[in-house]
Parts: sequence; C-alpha cells; structure tokens
Amino acid sequence: MTPRAYLDWNASAPLRPEARAAMIAAMDVTGNPSSIHAEGRAARAIVEGARESLAESLGAQAADIVFTSGATEAAALALAGRGLAGAAVEHDAVLAWTDTTLAVDTAGRVRVPDPARATLQLANGETGVLPALPAGLAVADLTQAFGKIPVAFDWLGIGMAIVSAHKLGGPRGVGALVLQKGVDVSPGLRGGGQERGRRAGTENVAAIAGVAAAAAAAVRDLADGVWDRVAVMRENLEAALASPEMMTILVGNDAPRLPNTTCVAAPGWKGETQVMAMDLAGFAISAGAACSSGRLRPSRVLTAMGLSEAVAASAVRISLGPTTTPAEVGRFAAAWTAARGRARRQAA
Amino acid sequence: MTPRAYLDWNASAPLRPEARAAMIAAMDVTGNPSSIHAEGRAARAIVEGARESLAESLGAQAADIVFTSGATEAAALALAGRGLAGAAVEHDAVLAWTDTTLAVDTAGRVRVPDPARATLQLANGETGVLPALPAGLAVADLTQAFGKIPVAFDWLGIGMAIVSAHKLGGPRGVGALVLQKGVDVSPGLRGGGQERGRRAGTENVAAIAGVAAAAAAAVRDLADGVWDRVAVMRENLEAALASPEMMTILVGNDAPRLPNTTCVAAPGWKGETQVMAMDLAGFAISAGAACSSGRLRPSRVLTAMGLSEAVAASAVRISLGPTTTPAEVGRFAAAWTAARGRARRQAA
Repeated sequence: MTPRAYLDWNASAPLRPEARAAMIAAMDVTGNPSSIHAEGRAARAIVEGARESLAESLGAQAADIVFTSGATEAAALALAGRGLAGAAVEHDAVLAWTDTTLAVDTAGRVRVPDPARATLQLANGETGVLPALPAGLAVADLTQAFGKIPVAFDWLGIGMAIVSAHKLGGPRGVGALVLQKGVDVSPGLRGGGQERGRRAGTENVAAIAGVAAAAAAAVRDLADGVWDRVAVMRENLEAALASPEMMTILVGNDAPRLPNTTCVAAPGWKGETQVMAMDLAGFAISAGAACSSGRLRPSRVLTAMGLSEAVAASAVRISLGPTTTPAEVGRFAAAWTAARGRARRQAA
Repeated sequence: MTPRAYLDWNASAPLRPEARAAMIAAMDVTGNPSSIHAEGRAARAIVEGARESLAESLGAQAADIVFTSGATEAAALALAGRGLAGAAVEHDAVLAWTDTTLAVDTAGRVRVPDPARATLQLANGETGVLPALPAGLAVADLTQAFGKIPVAFDWLGIGMAIVSAHKLGGPRGVGALVLQKGVDVSPGLRGGGQERGRRAGTENVAAIAGVAAAAAAAVRDLADGVWDRVAVMRENLEAALASPEMMTILVGNDAPRLPNTTCVAAPGWKGETQVMAMDLAGFAISAGAACSSGRLRPSRVLTAMGLSEAVAASAVRISLGPTTTPAEVGRFAAAWTAARGRARRQAA
C-alpha cells in the first residue's frame, strides 16, 4: 500500500524531532515554575531558557515574549478591546477583535492608511500571499510566515507579533505574543503573577520547551535553504495543475508568496469534494483554513481577493513542508489531475 | 547522597506515567483536529476520546467539558463578567473575577447565603480544608480536590466546575471547565469554532490526552485506597511536628481536609526561611500557594481564617502524594524539627 502524503502543513505541521525531545525532557522535570525550591527553579529555567531561545530565533532580542496557549490567545491578548483595523484576509482569531475596514486587492495586497491602528498578517494561510507589512504597524500576525521565510521582529518596526508553534513544527496549543519594549497589554487571564502579570496561569512547561526547540530548528532549516527545495516542488506542482485543459486558477501566484503554499481553484468542482476525494486517494489537503473546515461556505479570504463565490468554493490549498518529497508531490499531481479529468467529464 | 524528597504536590504533582505515555502517543499524531482528512480525524479522535474519558473520571457524563489551558483559564471562562461572590480563601485566579464578600470562619468554613450567585472551592490548596459545597452553587473550583477525594460532578448539584491537570499528575498548562447541561459561557478566546464555539484555538492535543490519562489513573488510585496510605503518612508527620516543645499550630486540622496536606505554623520562624532551609536540606515544600511564592506577605488564606499576620507568615505547606514514602516523610520531620529547634535557640 502506498503511504499517505501529508500536504496540509499550513493547517498543522508534523512535530519536529527536536521539539519532541525537548518536550519529553521538560515533562520529566517536576515542579511549578513559580515555586522557589530547586524543583521549581528547574522548571523555571526551562521556561526562561525557552523564552531566550525563541527571542533569538525570532530576531526579537530587544523585545518581551509572553507565552500563550496558541496564536488565538496571543491575538486576543494583542487585539481585544482595541478596535484596530483589519482586512478580510486575516484569520478568524484576528478578525474576532478588529474592524474589518482595510481594502484587499486582487493580488491579496492590503492598503493600510493608518498602520499604528491596524493589524496585518505577514503571510496568508490559505494562499501564501505576503501583503508587505507597513512600518509602524500595531500588530503583525506571523503565524503562517515564521519558520517559512526570514523574520526578524526587531527589524519589522511593529508593535506586537502573534506567533504559533504548530505551524512550524512545534506542538499544538502553544504560541506567543512578542512585544516591542515599552508596548504593553492588558491581561486576559488573571490570578497568579506569571509572565510578569501579563498572562496568569501555571506555564505549559513542555509546550514552551517545544515551541522554542521547533523555532530554533525551523530557523536553522531556513538558513540551510530547505525551503528553496520546497519552492521548487511547489513550482513543479503548479506547473502540473495548471495545464490549460484543467481550467485551473492558481490564486495569488502573481504576488510574493510563501514558498510552500498552492491555492488552486478548479471551477465547477467543489473544494470540499476535492478534499474528500484526495483523502480517499491518500492525500491530506484542505479547503480553506482548517479552523473553519466545518463551515460549508466559500472562503472569505478568496472572495476578498475578488474571486466569485462559485470560484472560491472550488479552491483547495496544498501546503508542503521540509520533509515533503518530490515523489509525494508527483503522486498528488497525478491523482488530482486524474480526478479533475473525471469530474469534468461527469459535469459535461 | 540522599535523594531529594518532593513534598509540594499541591503546587504541581509529578507527571503520571500514564499521562506521559498518552502525551507522547498524541504528539506523534500529526494533524489539526479541525481538518476533515484522515490525519485531522485521528487528532480529533484523541481530543474527543479524552473528553469522554475525563467526563467518566469526573462523574460528569451528563455534562459538557470545555478544555482550556489550565484552571486559570477555566476560572476566567466561568467567572469573568459575572460578579459572583467569593471568599478570601479562594485562589487568586478565582478572586480576580469575584466580589470577595463571603465570610470565612476559623475552621476555614465559608458561609454561602446565595449559592446560585457564588463560587467556592471544594478544597483549599494551602490548608487542605474542605468547605462543604452548598447545593445549587454556581461555580465550584475542583483544582486541588479532584483526584485526591471522590468527586462526582453530576452529584454535586453545581453549575460549573474548574479542573486542573497538573495537580493530579497531568501536564502543566491544561485544564477544563465542566458545564451542567443547559449552562453556558461566553467565550474568552474567539476565532475558530473549536470546543463548540466556547473556546477558540487549535486544541492542545497532547496535553488533552495527558489530562484524561492522568485523571483516569488518579481515580483508579483513589479507588485502590492509595490516599488512605497518604493520610496515614500525613498523620505521622503531624504527630512529629506538633510536639509541645515545637510550639507549632496545625492549621485547619480540626476541619475535614484533603488527606495529603499539612499547613503548619511555627511562630517566630518565617515561612520563606523554612522553605529555603528545607530546600537546602533536600526537601521541596512551600509557603502559601506557588503562584504567589514571590510575594513576601502573609497568606491571605490564613489571615481569613483568623490567624494573625505574624503567625500566618510563619506557616508552610507540606503536601504528599501517591509516590511519597514513609521514609521521605520521616526524614523531613527529623530535618524540620531539628531546624526548628535551632531557630528557637537562635531566637532565645
């Protein structure tokens, strides 16, 4: 039996071995990081070591890092109650707290008239498009970008940044909010004095160790050119999907993009149907963001870029990662184009 | 060299082997639980299996369970914006959201005139005292009690319950809010539709697997009488600490208590000093709750029970667990009483 090919890295990446090892080591250290005895101090050392390491990986040495239970909590901490402006291409966890007033063009670019009162993603999760961040931006969502393209918080000129672990090979359920020195937030979780009063609750020591280890490995991979290899696979994939008889649209491919993401619309063929057909054929891909997979309506991101509802509803996302192989991509392209051919013949 | 003895289980318990194994197995399952492909469904199955298992362990089959990043988040979800009444013996994470109007007596009992508008802990973390929960209570904090004494949510007659993992041998950084059918909450984290819209954010699959496995093991231990053995060790410990020449006060020992917790005040000898002296001697204990360990003021819990500030400042907590041995307890009692003798001679 052919093994399955996991081509949904933007939904959640496989756990990196470095993160797995760091988590197990941290799990074996008993103690509450707030306790002052030796056991507590050992747990505290893991958390603070991870904070320093993550800052280094993020190019955020001059910033503060608040560990959270994920990018969703980091977004709430950064955005709740502030009424910043956002664009319809943002993730639901960002849009939950913003005024959706920023205009998006057909290439996925976002106009930001007042950056100090706005939030913007560094990369879009569904299309991979990189809307250039303006200087002085209040909040940047690095969730999909960090680990895939070079990011240096201290150089981006932003106030805060939202970070997720499981998109870059860390565990699910942990993330961080990065704060420029002098920028502060009002805590959402209150009680103990953890995270300098910005986020109460006993720290998730294992997950925090995991995100730091994953980020360090991701940055090393990036420097080693791993994503250049991924970009080549993506190029071959898109060449295979885009043959004229397929009648496909490669969304966002004329804009600067992440090296791993393909968003392809196949008009007349529902995205959900494609995901299920490919799942049966042994491939994990997605239609829209995973978080809204249950909802059967066209992607808000794609309609904001000017696609019709019908075309948007026919789009799927294929997202590759460092351990994806050319053989997997080739098998997927063959399976998808064959299924596309069948679907078109049935519709005809 | 004598190994260290960890006697601070109420701050954080060692990870149970069952939880460790479940977490590693979950870490090795790639996929976002919201994805509809096979990998996503496998991750989803872990989360939903854990939810069912935890409900079973909690006696909460007729209730809903919302997984959170810990008891602190569960408390915020249950209490924020509701203005419920609470008592000064509650944890900071509860008091952050309550009106502290409920009276506490010297035995640690709490008078609750209007249970439907009140929150109360099932057990106090610093003293182990069990203030009996009144019927119809809005919110119960089970953090320190669950796993140490029998708890059956469906029989407690409460609206919601706050649960922590790392107090019962699960991982740090995960907990749950249990909701009686028909009781609902307004989400603090928004975005994706996870946890039936009550708590957005990709689920911490490994930690969720860990809390369920730990709770199942804790309930099995409880049924096996493990805590009866702990109660005997605690009794021996208190007999050793309470000899008249020590001039000690065993706080709360005339009230129903958890089987594992001793709160002992040694007037004239600062709790922090004791913790540090015992740490050097190889024992992990605490002065007050771990979360407020950094703060050098007498425990709010103890002054609420009528202790003077001076006496409260001289209290420490020793908390035992299922793997604590009589030898460890004996060594601690000898070390503590010797140090107490030295401290009294120095003060004289």
